[in-house]
Amino acid sequence: METFNAESAFDVYNDKCPTRQALDRITNKWSALVIGLLEERPKRFTDLQRTIKGISQKMLTQTLRTLERDGIVSRTVYAQVPPRVEYELTPLGCTLIEPLRSIRQWAESHIKQVTLAQAMYDQR
Amino acid sequence: METFNAESAFDVYNDKCPTRQALDRITNKWSALVIGLLEERPKRFTDLQRTIKGISQKMLTQTLRTLERDGIVSRTVYAQVPPRVEYELTPLGCTLIEPLRSIRQWAESHIKQVTLAQAMYDQR
Repeated sequence: METFNAESAFDVYNDKCPTRQALDRITNKWSALVIGLLEERPKRFTDLQRTIKGISQKMLTQTLRTLERDGIVSRTVYAQVPPRVEYELTPLGCTLIEPLRSIRQWAESHIKQVTLAQAMYDQR
Repeated sequence: METFNAESAFDVYNDKCPTRQALDRITNKWSALVIGLLEERPKRFTDLQRTIKGISQKMLTQTLRTLERDGIVSRTVYAQVPPRVEYELTPLGCTLIEPLRSIRQWAESHIKQVTLAQAMYDQR
């Protein structure tokens, strides 16, 4: 089996390249929504869950863990009673703010055209 | 069941808003890769399939159909023998070029930091 050769340039079109898997993880609606909320300031799990309508506890846990493992989000536990846990963007995570913001904004600013295109497609 | 009220502002954080589903479709690695290849010029199915390593025929067919339905890609059949079918970005699709390019470039330019973060996380 062919493996990825680290000497060659990184290339998202190569399924053996680690950038392909990273692309998959960041181009994920839940990641895009979580990172968007952490732009302003650190947040708690329950704040995120309340704001992102429709996300399950399991999916949010999994999304945060993946983002933490990728070095995009950090998790801080404050020793108080009850313990407070906050999630915030790392400096690496902050470099994703602009790219992901432009994707979310695209969805909000072009949705009328998309919906119209769908209606026309479905009438064919 | 609560339905989306079109009078209110579009909001990707609202799971009843059509922008949430649109976000899901465009923040998809296959869409990001297909749109990236169509940036330069129209392409045939086989060109796309050959360049996007690891995509199955079924997944490419489905991705192109979804992009066509959303008005992002157009499909043109040229009456020749054998018939030639080309896919190209619509003007709406062209507005996605920059946002998606910045995501793909992020993956390629930050992968070393991501891989290092993963190794540190896994050693805890």
